[in-house]
Amino acid sequence: MAHEPRAPRMTSVPPEPLRWQKIRAEPHAKTRIFDVTRAIFQHPQRSREQDFFVIEAPDWVNVLALTPDHQLVLVRQFRFGTNDFSLEIPGGVMEPGEDPVTAGLRELREESGYVGARARLLGSVRPNPAMQNNYCHLVLVEAAQRSAELAWDPDEEFTITTQPVDAVYALAHHGGITHALVLNALLLFTPVWAELKQAKLTRGV
Amino acid sequence: MAHEPRAPRMTSVPPEPLRWQKIRAEPHAKTRIFDVTRAIFQHPQRSREQDFFVIEAPDWVNVLALTPDHQLVLVRQFRFGTNDFSLEIPGGVMEPGEDPVTAGLRELREESGYVGARARLLGSVRPNPAMQNNYCHLVLVEAAQRSAELAWDPDEEFTITTQPVDAVYALAHHGGITHALVLNALLLFTPVWAELKQAKLTRGV
Repeated sequence: MAHEPRAPRMTSVPPEPLRWQKIRAEPHAKTRIFDVTRAIFQHPQRSREQDFFVIEAPDWVNVLALTPDHQLVLVRQFRFGTNDFSLEIPGGVMEPGEDPVTAGLRELREESGYVGARARLLGSVRPNPAMQNNYCHLVLVEAAQRSAELAWDPDEEFTITTQPVDAVYALAHHGGITHALVLNALLLFTPVWAELKQAKLTRGV
Repeated sequence: MAHEPRAPRMTSVPPEPLRWQKIRAEPHAKTRIFDVTRAIFQHPQRSREQDFFVIEAPDWVNVLALTPDHQLVLVRQFRFGTNDFSLEIPGGVMEPGEDPVTAGLRELREESGYVGARARLLGSVRPNPAMQNNYCHLVLVEAAQRSAELAWDPDEEFTITTQPVDAVYALAHHGGITHALVLNALLLFTPVWAELKQAKLTRGV
């Protein structure tokens, strides 16, 4: 941190953050989709142990599926956490041993019936570093086309639509899409989309 | 959903998603920062009730603080959920009755010592619609300057830095920032930043 002469009330330089040591963890609550653990940490310069609650869940995957005419596959569904409908991209819980791209192609196929020719990881994010231990992987599937049977879980119902990429960004910027992890996929896709648009312009399409 | 002639295996149009009714909810687990509720829902066309676990937490706020020379305020801290360090923007839990902008200015001041002249809500997102009931509000503070004393909670330690906006986007696009809600603030700031950059160009700065 640079010295800042305009801050006369800052009388001392604060310490750098230190790595706490995780001493042990014990189960606090279990559910079908996540567990809550009570994790005991110790600060390296303090004697007292302290507990923090951590939501433990498998990694998740969300899939941005781009059609040949540059539309994105969207699914609308009822969500039990918010007790409301939500406009999202396909996604779900990864199975043990699954890699993100395989899981993404599976969730895309099961929820929307779309399959894709090319798939790759856009990036991996932390849904909530303060209290959650897992990752959400964000996968891009290109040349996606609808050709598979739907395979919904018993409690799943979706409306499946496609919208042009720029219309999806407009929705995201104006409150039409509010799912944090879906918005993450759009942020990570931004530089890829800029390149694809540039290529379209260059080809004069 | 438009009819798609290339999908010969799609033999029926799936039903539109329906709104489930929340019948009741009962406490499942409590922690200092969130509760877990077992919510009983009923699908309007099925007789059987079904339970879903919901993480109930107060709303959160994250703050994008822009300095007069167009840098963003970043804080690095140790996070107990991931058991690792994380590069983020200031943020935290809203207090009862607080509005997002007030809460954002408070968290910014307490964590980083920065205060701002203009503040407004960029948008509000759902951290996890599937299993969480709260919002995270994303606040933009402009003309931020470091002038207040830090007021960290007992378990908080931060490294406070600023970086140029475009450098922060580069970090976000390349895995240097992975906190989902921080990335959301950057997505919602994108159109604002495009305008600010354009204005800079027009002024010839």
